[in-house]
Amino acid sequence: MDYVYGPGRNHLFVPGPVNIPDPVIRAMNRNNEDYRSPAIPAMTKTLLEDVKKIFKTTTGTPFLIPTTGTGAWESALTNTLSPGDRIVSFLIGQFSLLWIDQQQRLNFNVDVVESDWGQGANLDVLAEKLAADSAHTIKAICIVHNETATGVTNNLATVRKLLDHYNHPALFLVDGVSSICALDFRMDEWGVDVALTGSQKALSLPTGIGMVCASPKAIEASKTAKSVRVFFDWKDYLKFYKMGTYWPYTPSIQLLYGLRAALDLIFEEGLDNVIARHSRLGKATRLAVEAWGLKNCTQKEEWFSDTVTAVVVPPYIDSAEIVKRGWKRYNLSLGLGLNKVAGKVFRIGHLGNLNELQLLGCLAGVEMILKDVGYPVVLGSGVAAACAYLQNNTPMIPSRI
Amino acid sequence: MDYVYGPGRNHLFVPGPVNIPDPVIRAMNRNNEDYRSPAIPAMTKTLLEDVKKIFKTTTGTPFLIPTTGTGAWESALTNTLSPGDRIVSFLIGQFSLLWIDQQQRLNFNVDVVESDWGQGANLDVLAEKLAADSAHTIKAICIVHNETATGVTNNLATVRKLLDHYNHPALFLVDGVSSICALDFRMDEWGVDVALTGSQKALSLPTGIGMVCASPKAIEASKTAKSVRVFFDWKDYLKFYKMGTYWPYTPSIQLLYGLRAALDLIFEEGLDNVIARHSRLGKATRLAVEAWGLKNCTQKEEWFSDTVTAVVVPPYIDSAEIVKRGWKRYNLSLGLGLNKVAGKVFRIGHLGNLNELQLLGCLAGVEMILKDVGYPVVLGSGVAAACAYLQNNTPMIPSRI
Amino acid sequence: MDYVYGPGRNHLFVPGPVNIPDPVIRAMNRNNEDYRSPAIPAMTKTLLEDVKKIFKTTTGTPFLIPTTGTGAWESALTNTLSPGDRIVSFLIGQFSLLWIDQQQRLNFNVDVVESDWGQGANLDVLAEKLAADSAHTIKAICIVHNETATGVTNNLATVRKLLDHYNHPALFLVDGVSSICALDFRMDEWGVDVALTGSQKALSLPTGIGMVCASPKAIEASKTAKSVRVFFDWKDYLKFYKMGTYWPYTPSIQLLYGLRAALDLIFEEGLDNVIARHSRLGKATRLAVEAWGLKNCTQKEEWFSDTVTAVVVPPYIDSAEIVKRGWKRYNLSLGLGLNKVAGKVFRIGHLGNLNELQLLGCLAGVEMILKDVGYPVVLGSGVAAACAYLQNNTPMIPSRI
Amino acid sequence: MDYVYGPGRNHLFVPGPVNIPDPVIRAMNRNNEDYRSPAIPAMTKTLLEDVKKIFKTTTGTPFLIPTTGTGAWESALTNTLSPGDRIVSFLIGQFSLLWIDQQQRLNFNVDVVESDWGQGANLDVLAEKLAADSAHTIKAICIVHNETATGVTNNLATVRKLLDHYNHPALFLVDGVSSICALDFRMDEWGVDVALTGSQKALSLPTGIGMVCASPKAIEASKTAKSVRVFFDWKDYLKFYKMGTYWPYTPSIQLLYGLRAALDLIFEEGLDNVIARHSRLGKATRLAVEAWGLKNCTQKEEWFSDTVTAVVVPPYIDSAEIVKRGWKRYNLSLGLGLNKVAGKVFRIGHLGNLNELQLLGCLAGVEMILKDVGYPVVLGSGVAAACAYLQNNTPMIPSRI
Repeated sequence: MDYVYGPGRNHLFVPGPVNIPDPVIRAMNRNNEDYRSPAIPAMTKTLLEDVKKIFKTTTGTPFLIPTTGTGAWESALTNTLSPGDRIVSFLIGQFSLLWIDQQQRLNFNVDVVESDWGQGANLDVLAEKLAADSAHTIKAICIVHNETATGVTNNLATVRKLLDHYNHPALFLVDGVSSICALDFRMDEWGVDVALTGSQKALSLPTGIGMVCASPKAIEASKTAKSVRVFFDWKDYLKFYKMGTYWPYTPSIQLLYGLRAALDLIFEEGLDNVIARHSRLGKATRLAVEAWGLKNCTQKEEWFSDTVTAVVVPPYIDSAEIVKRGWKRYNLSLGLGLNKVAGKVFRIGHLGNLNELQLLGCLAGVEMILKDVGYPVVLGSGVAAACAYLQNNTPMIPSRI
Repeated sequence: MDYVYGPGRNHLFVPGPVNIPDPVIRAMNRNNEDYRSPAIPAMTKTLLEDVKKIFKTTTGTPFLIPTTGTGAWESALTNTLSPGDRIVSFLIGQFSLLWIDQQQRLNFNVDVVESDWGQGANLDVLAEKLAADSAHTIKAICIVHNETATGVTNNLATVRKLLDHYNHPALFLVDGVSSICALDFRMDEWGVDVALTGSQKALSLPTGIGMVCASPKAIEASKTAKSVRVFFDWKDYLKFYKMGTYWPYTPSIQLLYGLRAALDLIFEEGLDNVIARHSRLGKATRLAVEAWGLKNCTQKEEWFSDTVTAVVVPPYIDSAEIVKRGWKRYNLSLGLGLNKVAGKVFRIGHLGNLNELQLLGCLAGVEMILKDVGYPVVLGSGVAAACAYLQNNTPMIPSRI
Repeated sequence: MDYVYGPGRNHLFVPGPVNIPDPVIRAMNRNNEDYRSPAIPAMTKTLLEDVKKIFKTTTGTPFLIPTTGTGAWESALTNTLSPGDRIVSFLIGQFSLLWIDQQQRLNFNVDVVESDWGQGANLDVLAEKLAADSAHTIKAICIVHNETATGVTNNLATVRKLLDHYNHPALFLVDGVSSICALDFRMDEWGVDVALTGSQKALSLPTGIGMVCASPKAIEASKTAKSVRVFFDWKDYLKFYKMGTYWPYTPSIQLLYGLRAALDLIFEEGLDNVIARHSRLGKATRLAVEAWGLKNCTQKEEWFSDTVTAVVVPPYIDSAEIVKRGWKRYNLSLGLGLNKVAGKVFRIGHLGNLNELQLLGCLAGVEMILKDVGYPVVLGSGVAAACAYLQNNTPMIPSRI
Repeated sequence: MDYVYGPGRNHLFVPGPVNIPDPVIRAMNRNNEDYRSPAIPAMTKTLLEDVKKIFKTTTGTPFLIPTTGTGAWESALTNTLSPGDRIVSFLIGQFSLLWIDQQQRLNFNVDVVESDWGQGANLDVLAEKLAADSAHTIKAICIVHNETATGVTNNLATVRKLLDHYNHPALFLVDGVSSICALDFRMDEWGVDVALTGSQKALSLPTGIGMVCASPKAIEASKTAKSVRVFFDWKDYLKFYKMGTYWPYTPSIQLLYGLRAALDLIFEEGLDNVIARHSRLGKATRLAVEAWGLKNCTQKEEWFSDTVTAVVVPPYIDSAEIVKRGWKRYNLSLGLGLNKVAGKVFRIGHLGNLNELQLLGCLAGVEMILKDVGYPVVLGSGVAAACAYLQNNTPMIPSRI
């Protein structure tokens, strides 16, 4: 049943899907149920309320769609926009690229703002475009909060500031796939109109729920948006929300119980503590990379990502070989470099249900792999740097004080 | 964590989601994995091969889409048709109604052939339409194999015969949601162009995989179909199939392992034995209904469904009360009557991983509920009728002979 | 991995091990933990407190020994008695026989009071023995509360009355393996000195915890009892209880979490409701047996057991054939007749986590098997009788009202 | 349900209970079954055959007793010896001490050979005793293969050589609790008469099976041994082995399936590879300890244990504080120092289902804790030393080459 078993635990450090907490695995270990019984709506009600806290919104409307992040993207776009609508979209890596590809295939008029891979979204260009758009032809700004391919975190607060500065009514659509529930994200405060993530990312569940949250303005837009949609149509959800049965089609019972357990754990730890933990692990990872004498793919500190670090390898090394070796020799799963940075970077995902010692095991593994592939790493150097930081900054586990 | 616990086992007899076999629950009881490691493609390859056997096709191309049946519908339609295309679609109950609603919202020109709820698709009308359509304006025939709301099984072989008779090139699209892997379904033999089901139906998995299988003709059609689609686009899958990595976006690791286990169990039992088991349980259920003196919503024997039985209650009884009572008193989950037959029928789902004694427990429960709500049932009558049939027709469990 | 898979659910109706509730299976689905961390003692403390409620004692001391019922027997005997001690023990079936065999091999002087299999303990003889024993040579009375082989429940209150009447100081040792947590059992009220059960019985866990509860008098006796014991010695437990670390040797982490979950479910349902449910299911089973025209192995109503029914088959039928057929054809697990009643009775266990419809499925299965093996049963007759009773007597599930 | 949850995975490095492989957790995730059905004996047969491979015996008879290591000890002793029998037993740490305590309480005449804690068994004294015992008053030699409290591995081959040299017929009883399936152990080659382990140790299961293997000579001895025993009596097992039903009392269904899965994984990896993995992880741990400037409790290299390392802390540090801090801050579970070495050593268990990166995470954690408690460790030093060794010596995972 296990296709390629290795002794001991798999060390899962791809930037998604991520490690699922054991209590969540347990919660999902169950038979199907009738989703039209009173039990499922009762639980769903609590889920919808609590998911809003993860998005930091009180006014948003969440949708838990049986789909992936790609589907969540499509839901965000087709519910709020009409074919031909002009949108400004930032290309900074593979996932923003894929979203732009989707935007184009959905027949929007995409104004692509491209940066080097490793840089954040060019918000100066956004400012120019907004300044020039007194006619309000721009209907939406589409931006990934965190580009998973390069480990770049964009500054969403600035996007909002620009929109406000130019008094521009464009919708503000955010891909929070590798950020929400791990990085500081504030839907209401930043005036995000649609935010979305996938269950297999920082929420630490299996793939299967595309989580989309819509502001009142987005909900309003959905009433006139002309993009063709059925499966992804919010209208059907809203209809069933009103009836109190919640589901226009069959949800995964297991994922609902899993989400319930995941949210309980997040609130038990405290969402701010969860975010602080990600910050701590991100910082530790970057210190290790530095100690190894390697470069972060992310070009400036302001863009450093606390959920994924893309490490640039020397030109004489194929980063794919590092990933392959991790899996074959150390039961370590690292992320490949994608597209433009294929062969050039490997990625360490450090998001989701993870702690210090797990990360340190990974970093030790990376050191051995670097040595394996001929990079003159000083063994222990990265771990030492990370430990020095973590030993100073890791709090007691609150429940165990 | 369990919202409304009752002692003992829940008796799940809604027509989906259905009971998951314990070995499948076990197979899914696991952490996430890197879906880009060599293990997942290796397993996926076996899944795609084996899923074809469930559809009884050797030439079809299967897609395991992270969605529900509603998404599978959308995938079937948008990949093969263009807005404005004329399609003939049969309205015989709630699920065919919902599919037609989707077809209309996707901007097809839907030629609806309506029957009374409880009747099968009117194929005489189809014959007339095909006969009249020498210009081949009909681009597709859309039909549910088994209408889950009324327990009606349509005759797909006849649809194929008509298409052949009139030498009509229309695509033949089949909703097999509550039929495939339970009823006799033959994709290649019947010349079905797109067939689809959901993982939570007869395959007895959680919700989350929309299984769509496309004939070479459907694949060909997808190259020119103009319906807008991205998430549901087969093209992306085909591209990754070619690369041998299979997944254009993140699949559910758990569902893949679950599907592997489910297929293994089906093949261990034998697909024909699985179908025979459904036939046996369907027949037993109908004999019980007869013994209770109640009517089957399905109006003719030729349409009797072996996966779900919709039972008509006397006018002085509200069928919703029966469902409510089953859940509240006997931990029995029955299906509600939907839309036109709301309050008038309740439904016994008998599909998926189920055996004789489970069904008999359900039938005994229904008898007690009928008595509870004031119907003068003879207690034991339905069980006796079902037992008489089952005792004569149940084979030894092959692995235990 | 499954040695002999059959489609659908296995219907487990042996009188132990019994069906485990899904929430308990979930709770046990976990890795090992350090049992010397603060977490396990904290949980253990709650377990020991709550287990006392199951025994209906406030003054008793519970021991959760990693063993089976056989080990629990040995623990009860060796901690309280010395070799050569005279004990009165009642032989009424296979399990009392095995306990007596153990008593003899442990070198006690066993005064066996034998009854026909199907009868309860002969308490008249006990009265005589107590009356005659003014010298108090009898050190203990050993009695099974419920003989699992014949479905006979002994009257423990009468034993206590006799001891009191004769003012006899003998210890009162009770095997509650197939009674505690299912039948009315009152350790304190009945002055039981040692009571015991196994986790795989009415508590509905896997095998692995021998639960023994000792009265203050039994604890006192343990200080001078000369039987050799180490693994089963209460002294080691008491030492660790005092230290607050609880475990003299490694417990099963999984079973501790399982027990926690099992107790939570029992208290959620209400222990009295649990007992009432067993009474209801026992009564329904006996009504079915009567309707089939078969005899209960239990010879008088006063001894009828609400946890197991031993059904006598006609002489021309081998009861082992019934059990075999249940397993091979209907995925139904019934209990064999043991020893003296081998071939003559089969047993329906109706204890633990079970509800009405599960039992009715089993009864329908038994009817079909009876027909299979040539007994002229009227199909549906037993189910009808059971339904008539259950439909009148089953309460609403409290959590769902 | 989780008493003290911490984010991320618990790092379990106590020397038992140890980490359970996920496939084993899955295999145990199941309801009870009738252990008298044909399925359980069929599986048991394979278990008994395969367990012999773990003990490296072809002539031994294994017993899978529902108990712990303490019970397995008692089974080994009481089945082969009679009260008053003289046995030579080696006291070298807490677990040998406990076994000796048991031997004394079971009324054997124990000739204790004591060593300093940190030293191995004094086999010179054994030689003397054997030389002096021409009358063969010594009935058994009892020795722990690996003393879990101090991380000392005894040389069993030498014991056998001495017995052979003096042509002494004493039984050779071995506690292999923290060795079998991890260290090189050869029952037949070394002429061990009873060897035993517990399921929660290197076999990586939950607690609950005391695994005892008896040589033909031990079986012969059991026929005349006069120690009182019932639950632990091999005779009852042998009787049921003959009948082919195997179990004299109820086994844990879950543990049987778990053991099946555990054995499958061990054979898939290869028992010799499993042992080599333990050797590798043991060596790496010792290199880290050295790099930290700390002493191994084990006084000579010949006794170094590959399953547990007891690390001596400087006198100004309380080792219990290290363990406490590991749990409270880093979710790391280390072993306490016990009895004579309480406060002086902490223990790193490195046995069972474990790999290189897990260990390195643990070592990094220990470094941070050492710093926390005021020991001037060079952060990264131990990890560096371990990595240097592991990077040179870790083979590719065979299934992934």
